[in-house]
Formats: sequence, C-alpha cells, structure tokens
Amino acid sequence: MTPSTTALLKPFGVALELDTGRMPEPRNHLVRRASDLRGYYADAAALERLIADGGDPVHYEVFEVPVPNQPGHLMYCISTLQPGVVGEECFFTKGHYHAVPGTAEVYLCLRGEGYLVMKTAEGAFAAERMTRGRMVYVPPHWAHRSVNTSPDEPLVSFCVYPAEAGHNYGDIAVEGFPKRVYRRDGRCVIE
Amino acid sequence: MTPSTTALLKPFGVALELDTGRMPEPRNHLVRRASDLRGYYADAAALERLIADGGDPVHYEVFEVPVPNQPGHLMYCISTLQPGVVGEECFFTKGHYHAVPGTAEVYLCLRGEGYLVMKTAEGAFAAERMTRGRMVYVPPHWAHRSVNTSPDEPLVSFCVYPAEAGHNYGDIAVEGFPKRVYRRDGRCVIE
Repeated sequence: MTPSTTALLKPFGVALELDTGRMPEPRNHLVRRASDLRGYYADAAALERLIADGGDPVHYEVFEVPVPNQPGHLMYCISTLQPGVVGEECFFTKGHYHAVPGTAEVYLCLRGEGYLVMKTAEGAFAAERMTRGRMVYVPPHWAHRSVNTSPDEPLVSFCVYPAEAGHNYGDIAVEGFPKRVYRRDGRCVIE
Repeated sequence: MTPSTTALLKPFGVALELDTGRMPEPRNHLVRRASDLRGYYADAAALERLIADGGDPVHYEVFEVPVPNQPGHLMYCISTLQPGVVGEECFFTKGHYHAVPGTAEVYLCLRGEGYLVMKTAEGAFAAERMTRGRMVYVPPHWAHRSVNTSPDEPLVSFCVYPAEAGHNYGDIAVEGFPKRVYRRDGRCVIE
C-alpha cells in the first residue's frame, strides 16, 4: 500500500518573508510587468502610458518551490501584487481557471487589502475581501484574480492548490471578468 | 464538463487571527488538554502531575471551517500549540497519518518556534524547523506531529490538505515517533 521509502518525496522546508511576500530561495520566480497585462485593462491607453512613461513597472511576482504535479501533492506559492491604478482601475493579476477545473485553491492574505474576484464559465461572479488574516476559499470551477485596492501597500498572499491543477489563462484572456474594481476619489467601486 | 452553477459551492472568506492562532467564527473548534495526551509522552508520571496539579491545561486548539470532503476540495485550519514541557519533553500534538495516505499537507508557521516531526510507516524519520514564515511540506505517506520548543510562546500554524485526506490517529497512538524532542538546560535536543 505504501510505496517504498526510497521512492517517497522527502519532507522539506522553505523560508518565506511574510511581510515582503518574497521567497529568498525560490526555484520558480514569476515576474509580470505592466506590459504583460496588455489587453486586460479597460483603459488600454493608460496602460501604454504606464509602460512608456512609468518604466513598465513590476505588477506582481510569484515565488514557488515546485513539487511533483501528481494527485495527492499540493503546490503552494507566495505572491505580491503591487499597488497602483491603470487609469482608475486597480492593479490586478491576469487571473486563471485551473487546467483541471474541479480543483479548489486556498488564499491566505498576509498583508495589504484588496479583493479576490471570481467567476464561473457560466458567468456567476463573486468578490471576497482580502485583508491581513483573511482566508478566501476558491471552490472548484471558479476562475480567480487578485486585485490590490490599497493606494500604497502591496497585497501579499499565500496560496495552496492541488499540484495537478495547472493553470488555464487563455479562457480568462478572452472572457475577462464580469466586473472591474476602480478607485475613484479614494474609494473602491466594483462595477 | 462544468457542473451547473447552482450545484457549485460558492466562494467564501474566513477571518483568522494570525498572531493568536484563533478563528473568531469557526465551525469546528478542537481543544486537546493534557489529559487527552495520556499514553503519548515518555514521562507518564509528569503528565499526571500536570493534569492533577497544573489544572489539566489546554495543549492545543484547531479551528476549521469545513468544506465538502471530496477530491478537488482543500481543507485548511489554523492551530495553536501551547509552550510547555512534560518532564523534559516539549509539548506536542498527537500526530497522525492521513486516512488516505497518498495525500500531502502544507504547514505555514505564523508564530513561535518548534519542529514538525515526521515519519513513514517503514520507519523513516524527518524533523523540519518551524519558525515564523517557514513553510514545511509533508509529502504523501508521512505522518506528522508539531512540537513547540519555545519556553514561552505559542506555536501558530496554518495548514492545508486535500479535503478527502481524513485523519488516522490510531497508528501513531500505537507506533509513536522514533524520536522525541526535549528541552534541557534551555537547549533543544532531538533523540
């Protein structure tokens, strides 16, 4: 029933910086800049100004140490989404479904404030507040995107999902999300 | 391929207190006192003194909001293990295998210091340090137990595991772990 011990993955530990959202010794380090988000924001001209005049700033980073992408294993990462707006729209991550759609994800917010916005392929929408200490459960079949609503603080999250889940970015690149998050006169609006 | 939206679990958020290790509105709240750990420590007489003279103190607490225990879902909890010794042995949790042995678990330490000690049914042993910001990966087939080595601070952890994993406490109650963690003259020893 149990595979031989030599065949088993051995336990290991990884250091995370819970305040900065960094992993000092990652094996995977994903960096998305403003220019990687072309086609995602409502105000495309504002994004181009940010890229040209704003130095194409880092939008978000994800740090991982991968495990076997097999059922029973769990992937985990720490990510940091910078504060900012494109026009009036708060910085967000691309968002994705899982390639294996029937798999959940757990988000634990460690710093900052924002939303996890979620949708199903059939068009249902949900937005859950992310603040320090708030855990958001993304059930199977829900695409998810992080949004940073703070004017000045990064949004840091720790995430766990089944290792076989994978990512499906393509459908969201086409569909988008039914609602967007704006900051106007210092207030957040979802519309 | 996608179940109808009405059949899907809806996203939700839960507040966690990352410093105290509490969940203000849990649906499950497990409390283990010293008397629940009879048979687990090397010095049974010291445990009885702690129960009789020490007021049977709380050893650890686990807070959860359950999700369907079906493949693809993820269970998560926040737990707090109090500091203390039984004789010279540091306070620990009972420890368990998963009832579905081929399932991993992710531990994120939020506060305190200690070890996650792990073993396989074949007798392999591992100990990974738990300090704030350290993530420990418990691969499939490894039983795991938390140990608090601090003289005065609780050990707070956030955990995620596949929802269908379940718990098998019985085998560890019989087998124990190959090594124990002691505090002697202010130093930690694993032997």
